[in-house]
Amino acid sequence: MAGVLYGVGVGPGDPELMTVKAARLIASARVVAYPALAGAQSFARSIAAAHISAAAREIVIDVTMTAAREPAQIAYDTGAAEIASALRGGDDVVCLCEGDPFFYGSFMYLFARLVDEFEIEVVPGVPSVTACAARAGMPLVARNERLTVLPGPLGEDELRTRIDDADSVAIVKVGRHLGKLRAVIEGLGLSDRAVYVERASLPNEIVCPLVDAPDAAPYFSMILLTKAADPWL
Amino acid sequence: MAGVLYGVGVGPGDPELMTVKAARLIASARVVAYPALAGAQSFARSIAAAHISAAAREIVIDVTMTAAREPAQIAYDTGAAEIASALRGGDDVVCLCEGDPFFYGSFMYLFARLVDEFEIEVVPGVPSVTACAARAGMPLVARNERLTVLPGPLGEDELRTRIDDADSVAIVKVGRHLGKLRAVIEGLGLSDRAVYVERASLPNEIVCPLVDAPDAAPYFSMILLTKAADPWL
Repeated sequence: MAGVLYGVGVGPGDPELMTVKAARLIASARVVAYPALAGAQSFARSIAAAHISAAAREIVIDVTMTAAREPAQIAYDTGAAEIASALRGGDDVVCLCEGDPFFYGSFMYLFARLVDEFEIEVVPGVPSVTACAARAGMPLVARNERLTVLPGPLGEDELRTRIDDADSVAIVKVGRHLGKLRAVIEGLGLSDRAVYVERASLPNEIVCPLVDAPDAAPYFSMILLTKAADPWL
Repeated sequence: MAGVLYGVGVGPGDPELMTVKAARLIASARVVAYPALAGAQSFARSIAAAHISAAAREIVIDVTMTAAREPAQIAYDTGAAEIASALRGGDDVVCLCEGDPFFYGSFMYLFARLVDEFEIEVVPGVPSVTACAARAGMPLVARNERLTVLPGPLGEDELRTRIDDADSVAIVKVGRHLGKLRAVIEGLGLSDRAVYVERASLPNEIVCPLVDAPDAAPYFSMILLTKAADPWL
């Protein structure tokens, strides 16, 4: 009988922000899979490290990020084939994902490749967006407010229109788009409502007003912005 | 010295989807606070029940939901005063919140009332939106896709425009708005892309195509809709 594939969100970074279920599944896993950038330590693995058994077999999926879609997709093909082989051999496989598997998570690429043949259970995790809001002390949405999640790589005009139209906004994948995003938000007169969060819940976390953000942002950074004026009273 | 207020997300319903940190804070809490509807068992408390010490003092905040804002706000005033008194006495207080405290969570009303006087730490939790996506097997957003979160009580025209304009949509607080939402989504020709999820991760959970949804939806229900056609390959 084939094994079950678990797509497990490990949360934003602090190992204690993993769910009890994630910790249990990881600790009992004989096969653990995770993404890693070429040569670098896997972020997802580092979050889960304390729970991984020394006897576990580890499948590393090298998802070196490039603007081109091709190389990463080949990596997912290879990783999916290796996971499929373990599942056919009867082992369960626990695949680690930063944040939540279905919220900009790399797991969805494996899911798409394996869902027709295997039983898959997705275990949700704390996504970056609520982790950043918690660290920023910024309530995101209440009552009938809308939340808009926008990726930083979108074009300037589209960002301007969508931020202007929103109640609360979370901009993910800020990275090298920080300058552009700052200009758009400044142009809309919303700078005093925007917060910058980098590596939320990790020891080297940064939380500050957007205007005080460092010049260079890593991939794991976010801008939160809410137009609600004390909507919680 | 005053105590610290912890606003702790307990996740969508399955007690195992609580974070390790939430479980630890709840287990060590001498004072636990949570919302409850008049006379009914508190959902947040039921999720956390196994971790609450028998010796803990419990502060119940009766947030009976009404269309009018007034009664709930008085309940938060009363609850905040009771929590403040415990904090001033030197006790830490752990406040339980369904899902995530800052994602349509009742905790933000207490946060707004207490943040000026007390130290508050918000512990993020798995929000309903990623929990529902996991149970529906529906990846929410990848790459440069946008996610739009809409409350069901919004007007029909606004819902139509915003769903039409979105990449992926999560509609929260479906409840008695199910019929209206179904009509709007049907009118846009998107019914075959919409999934209905009720009480995600609980034993009485329902996950089905929107067209097969039951006639009456509870407050804790959601519609997920994505326009991406196999975007994950």
